[in-house]
This record gives sequence, C-alpha cells and structure tokens, in this order.
Amino acid sequence: MTRVDLTLDPELVVEILTTFLRDQVTKKGYADVVLGLSGGVDSALGAALCARTLGAGHVTGLAMPAEQSDPQSLADARLVAESLGIKLVLEPIGDIVETIFAGERDVDQVRIGNAAARVRMIRLFDYSQKHHALVIGTSNKTEILLGYGTWYGDLASSINPIGDLYKTQVWHLAAHLGLPERIIDKPASADLWPGQTDEAELGLKYADVDRLLYLMVDRDYSFADLVEAGFAPDYVRAVFDRVMASQFKRSLPTIAKVGMRTVGIDFHMTRDWGK
Amino acid sequence: MTRVDLTLDPELVVEILTTFLRDQVTKKGYADVVLGLSGGVDSALGAALCARTLGAGHVTGLAMPAEQSDPQSLADARLVAESLGIKLVLEPIGDIVETIFAGERDVDQVRIGNAAARVRMIRLFDYSQKHHALVIGTSNKTEILLGYGTWYGDLASSINPIGDLYKTQVWHLAAHLGLPERIIDKPASADLWPGQTDEAELGLKYADVDRLLYLMVDRDYSFADLVEAGFAPDYVRAVFDRVMASQFKRSLPTIAKVGMRTVGIDFHMTRDWGK
Repeated sequence: MTRVDLTLDPELVVEILTTFLRDQVTKKGYADVVLGLSGGVDSALGAALCARTLGAGHVTGLAMPAEQSDPQSLADARLVAESLGIKLVLEPIGDIVETIFAGERDVDQVRIGNAAARVRMIRLFDYSQKHHALVIGTSNKTEILLGYGTWYGDLASSINPIGDLYKTQVWHLAAHLGLPERIIDKPASADLWPGQTDEAELGLKYADVDRLLYLMVDRDYSFADLVEAGFAPDYVRAVFDRVMASQFKRSLPTIAKVGMRTVGIDFHMTRDWGK
Repeated sequence: MTRVDLTLDPELVVEILTTFLRDQVTKKGYADVVLGLSGGVDSALGAALCARTLGAGHVTGLAMPAEQSDPQSLADARLVAESLGIKLVLEPIGDIVETIFAGERDVDQVRIGNAAARVRMIRLFDYSQKHHALVIGTSNKTEILLGYGTWYGDLASSINPIGDLYKTQVWHLAAHLGLPERIIDKPASADLWPGQTDEAELGLKYADVDRLLYLMVDRDYSFADLVEAGFAPDYVRAVFDRVMASQFKRSLPTIAKVGMRTVGIDFHMTRDWGK
C-alpha cells in the first residue's frame, strides 16, 4: 500500500486560512461574520479560525437545533463558543420545519434533513442581512467531494475557509488550535437522528477515504493508479462514482446556451472587465 | 446610437431549448419536472418549453404565494397552467415565512423577500425529492446579470432553460409560443409588495438595459466602446457596477485553497476522470 501522509504544517495552514479570511471579509466590506455552530468539529474549527483572524467579538455562532437533534450537540456548541469567547445565538428550527411539513404524514428522514439544512441557510443569511455579518461555510473537502451535504443548504455560504481540508486534516488542525477534546474526539455526525454517525451512513472510514480522495483528486490518480497503490477496485469504483454523481452539488444551475457569452459557461469577468 | 437588435430566430431557439431540456432531464434520470409558477412571463415560458419537450403531463407548476402577494398573480399562474394543460399545485408560503419571523418586529421587505424566495426553493426541492421531478429554474439573463434575485433562492435550481435569454427575448419567445397576452403584457414584478415593478425598483428599462448588457456581456464591449455606441457614461458605469457587485450571486462559496486541487478553483472533472 502506497503511504499517503495527509499531515499538514499546521502553522502554515493557519497562516493561509487567516489571511484568506482577512482578505475576503475585508474585500466584501464586512467586519463581522456568522456561522452555524453544530457542536461538531468542522464548525468549531471555522469559528476558531474566524476568532483568531477577526477577534472573538466579531464572530457569532448560530446554534440551530432541530426537533430530533441530540441535546448534547447544543451543549457542545456552547462549549465551543465559551472556549473561543464568541457570541452564541440560539435559533431552534423545529417549528419552521414542522410548519413546512404540516399536514403531511410519513415524511422521510432525507426530506426532513434537507429541509432542516436549508432552513439553517435561511437563518444564517437572514442574520447576515440584519447584522451585516458575512456567512462563513464550514463544509470540509471530504464531504464536499462525496456530496455528503445539502445543495443550497449546508453547502451554501459566502466563503468557506475549510473547504479544502479533508476531515482528518480538520481533526488535526482543530487539535493544533486547542479546541476542546470532546469536540475533536466524538464521532462525526450530521445529527439527523439519534445515534447517526457519518461513517456508518457513508459506509466509509474517513481515515481511508481521505487518503483515497487525496490521491484521486489532489494527485489526479487514475483508476489503475489507485488499484496499484493498494486500494480495492470495488472501493475505488464506489468512491469515483460518488464523486461523479455529486458533481451537481458543486455546481450552479446549468444554463442553456443561446447567446455569445453565457453565465456559468463562458462569461468570465477578467481583471479588466468593466474598464 | 448603434443599432442593437435582440430579435431571435424563435423556431431555432425553441429547438435549442427543447433539445437542452430533453438532454438534461434524461441524462439526470428524470421524466418529470417541477417549477415555480409565479404568474409572470419567465416561469410561464419555462413551463411552456417543458410542456413542449416532455408533454404537459410531466410538468408540475408550484404556485407559492406569500402573504403579501397580489391575488391576481395566483390567478395568472392558474391561467398559465390551464393554457398549457400542466398540473398546478398550490403551496402558500405565508405561514412558513411568518414562523421564520415570529416574535420579530419591523422586519424589512428585503429580509422578507429573501426568506420567501428561499422558502420557495425549499418547497421546490422537497417536491423534487418526493415526486422525483427535476427542479427547473426560470431566472432570465437580465436579472442574473444584474443580480436581481436571491442567492440560494429563486436563483437556485437544477437546470435553467431561459437563463441565457434577456428579458426582452423572453417576451418575444413567449409571444411566439402563444402564451396568454395578459401574462406577456403585464409589467414585470417580483410581487413582493403591492404595485412593485421591476423597472421602478431597478430604475432601469428592460428595453434599454438589455441592449446595453448584450453589448457589454455577449459582445465584450469596453466602457469606451459603449459610450461610443451612444450610451450615457453614468448609465454604463452604473450597470457595470451592478454586474460586478452581483458576481457573488453567480458563484459558489469561495473556498480557501490549501491542497493541490481545490473544488471551485482548479478541480475539474475532465471527460476521462474516473477512468
């Protein structure tokens, strides 16, 4: 098996990410940011990076538990906010999701989960508008590539400082920044039903799939290269298929081309555009 | 003043757009589509193109009036559905928007309008999931370029057959397809408050701005070119600024680059990817 080391130089990466945040937030005309705080490690890392860049007083975490969320998640979100000294605002979404599905029976978990993710997006952007705070996304590279997230829901934000970090790198960086151990050590979960874990639902181990995705995406290995590197052919095929099937979630709506330059196809704003 | 003719060959464009719809819907594994029917001309044209491509029985229009929507808009949506023979499903969103803003006073129109647009997105994608129908977007090129729409709201969909048509071209094509005259003749409106019209709110006339945008975007005219073509410098500047300021709405979240290939920056799935 080819050795794949996903270890980052944490100081360098923190420098890159805080510079990114400072540049983007300033360029877009903001001083403050807002992000969803789920109690998980991704949003905790996002919040820590924002606090380090802008000062804790400029960062707000929205805790947005749904009806079926584990109460421990809210406790964990509070722990993160306290440990960083950022403001936590509690905005439960249960009544909104309930209103959406009022009068319907037997609504499945997928529909509820997607609606909940999108209601959280509404809350974040509404907070953004009301308080002039930029919406920070905290989807990691593993879930973005696997499509393990809701299009126009948790995958939607203004900027995302951790979207190029694999989940194992998120854990590594979170530990480096001294985030609370229980946030780093608990099993990753979308918190859609009691006992749900990402790894059980995906049928994948982050430690494995991150190494595979790194070779597949960052290093552009072919199917044959990956098998030669020691990954089982069925596993490689399944992950390739997942990344390809979720390409739409990493895209904007596909527009039918009629004119000479089309948004999303060949209309690009070059540096001299508008001059 | 340079003459700019936005007249399309309607038969050719209908052929392009129905081919696009057939290809995309099939490729994505769908037979049915769903779209929001506002009673306006954009969604009416989108519905007409879908009905022509897939058969009226495969097209559902969701009418999603808000509390403050003009009742005439719903009547117009029904008129469109009846004239095309497609199914209309009524899903008022007033109670959801009310739940979102429960306990808040003095919520401004912009926040309500954005929340309403995003709640409609939730409804459309939930319908999509429940009934296996692809979500068709109906933002036109003028509003996409001017940023006159809600990010992750009405600008969000799976595919958009009319996103490369300027508003004046939408009117032209709608007339060619025989859509009801009152749908084509009424003033364009986002229907966020009584009497609202796009042209009053934008401070622009579609007939003018479409010609300017066509030269600016499709023909890549510079500022100097546009002034020479006869447009007032202040007007050209204002429209350039609007297109540039709304660039984020035509983009996905900006991800901080750390790895060798990054989603939205330099990770592209070429045709041989996954082989």
